Amino acid sequence: MMNAQEKLKERLNKNLHICVGLDTDLNKIPSHLFKTNEPILEFNKIVVENTYEDAAAYKINFAFYERLGSRGLDIIQKTLEFIPKNILTIADAKRGDIGNTSEMYAKAIFEELNFDSITLHPYMGFDSIQPFLIYKNKISFLLALTSNIGANDFEKIKSSEGKFLFQHVIEKSNEWNINKNLGIVFGATKIEELKENISLFNELYVLLPGVGAQGGSLEDVVKTFDLNNSKNYLINVSRALIYCDTSKNFGEAISHTIKEYNRKVVPN
Amino acid sequence: MMNAQEKLKERLNKNLHICVGLDTDLNKIPSHLFKTNEPILEFNKIVVENTYEDAAAYKINFAFYERLGSRGLDIIQKTLEFIPKNILTIADAKRGDIGNTSEMYAKAIFEELNFDSITLHPYMGFDSIQPFLIYKNKISFLLALTSNIGANDFEKIKSSEGKFLFQHVIEKSNEWNINKNLGIVFGATKIEELKENISLFNELYVLLPGVGAQGGSLEDVVKTFDLNNSKNYLINVSRALIYCDTSKNFGEAISHTIKEYNRKVVPN
Repeated sequence: MMNAQEKLKERLNKNLHICVGLDTDLNKIPSHLFKTNEPILEFNKIVVENTYEDAAAYKINFAFYERLGSRGLDIIQKTLEFIPKNILTIADAKRGDIGNTSEMYAKAIFEELNFDSITLHPYMGFDSIQPFLIYKNKISFLLALTSNIGANDFEKIKSSEGKFLFQHVIEKSNEWNINKNLGIVFGATKIEELKENISLFNELYVLLPGVGAQGGSLEDVVKTFDLNNSKNYLINVSRALIYCDTSKNFGEAISHTIKEYNRKVVPN
Repeated sequence: MMNAQEKLKERLNKNLHICVGLDTDLNKIPSHLFKTNEPILEFNKIVVENTYEDAAAYKINFAFYERLGSRGLDIIQKTLEFIPKNILTIADAKRGDIGNTSEMYAKAIFEELNFDSITLHPYMGFDSIQPFLIYKNKISFLLALTSNIGANDFEKIKSSEGKFLFQHVIEKSNEWNINKNLGIVFGATKIEELKENISLFNELYVLLPGVGAQGGSLEDVVKTFDLNNSKNYLINVSRALIYCDTSKNFGEAISHTIKEYNRKVVPN
């Protein structure tokens, strides 16, 4: 069994950096799928079948499944069964709570559902993160600077030390990265901040949402990491990829689109 | 149908301030329940039956249910059916994500499960909170200063304006509280900070975890709010209340314990 770090490394070494975001929404999937038993699961299956050679990881956005109640959790579990075991899975669940509660969330995501990695809110500090970090073979991505406008409200508050809050999070993430199982979330929409902060990332994995529907530029992100000689990054694309076509042949269209993204990652 | 604000007001006016935390753990409930079909549900039912006259609210800690997969969500739904419709229910789920995703979480908690309120991570800022705030008849509790040690890592970072991060969160919460549907989470373990900051709370509801197993003092919290002439608070007790007895008569013991807590709230 490959661990999270090995799965990711194998893909990144092949210059695969695109994380497929499964934000699957009943209101956006092709209508012909409504004839099937479980349209969301069928959609996910076709997306995976058409991307698994080109994807660096799959990210499941929990909100879209929790929306459906307990049925949604079953769909998550069944979707994981379609994803080849050598590809990293990310539970985009943005959890974080006091120690004994985070311990339960970690069990839910890493044991019950058996995800390779998770996204976490850093707000509550170390003891809210540690129950995830004790899983050495999994990866925990802490929110640093997110892709949305609201990032300005708190993440960009300047501290008395002259640093932004998100820079304090990056600093602590490095401190806590003893087992090389920590990453950060950094918005692909924040390219200036990416350039200014990339030297702080060290060995942290970087998950960058915000390309596509949110307006971030894939090329700018790639160039920034290239200039820094770093391969340690995943660019998430959700809506712009999985809803790029709503015909019966949407699977082929998605396959074509992710290959195009991959060509932009390696321009030669 | 009473809305969240009305439910809470009715109980607070009766001097009921104890929120019963249903952090139900298979490893901690009385062993005779294992003979029943669904021990966790049976436990919750007996807790509710023995506390509903004395409780100000019920808080369901999602981690303990998600730990069980989709079955856990079903238990949440069935537990809500036992809770009288005039008592506030809190989804202690600590969510928060970009706008279109928070919208899905809000639908999951406020529509699919029909909770009266939720706890939220403020880290990602306004557009991560707004999808919850548009539900005017529900209450959203933002994490301000939490009860754990890790609160020192980020929540107590001092800004260049001379305020702690958690004070910025309180300030913004007041700004965003146009529909009087916002609250904050403030650790009952942080009594000095409570005294120093209570004047900033204004019309925000306050949920205080940390009494009992985490060491916070019920009396100190009550005194602080009394001195400030505020009734707008809920003191959560989880482990110290629901696991106060593991005999077959645990229901009676819980009933006795919550009544004792209530006597401490109104000492005369």
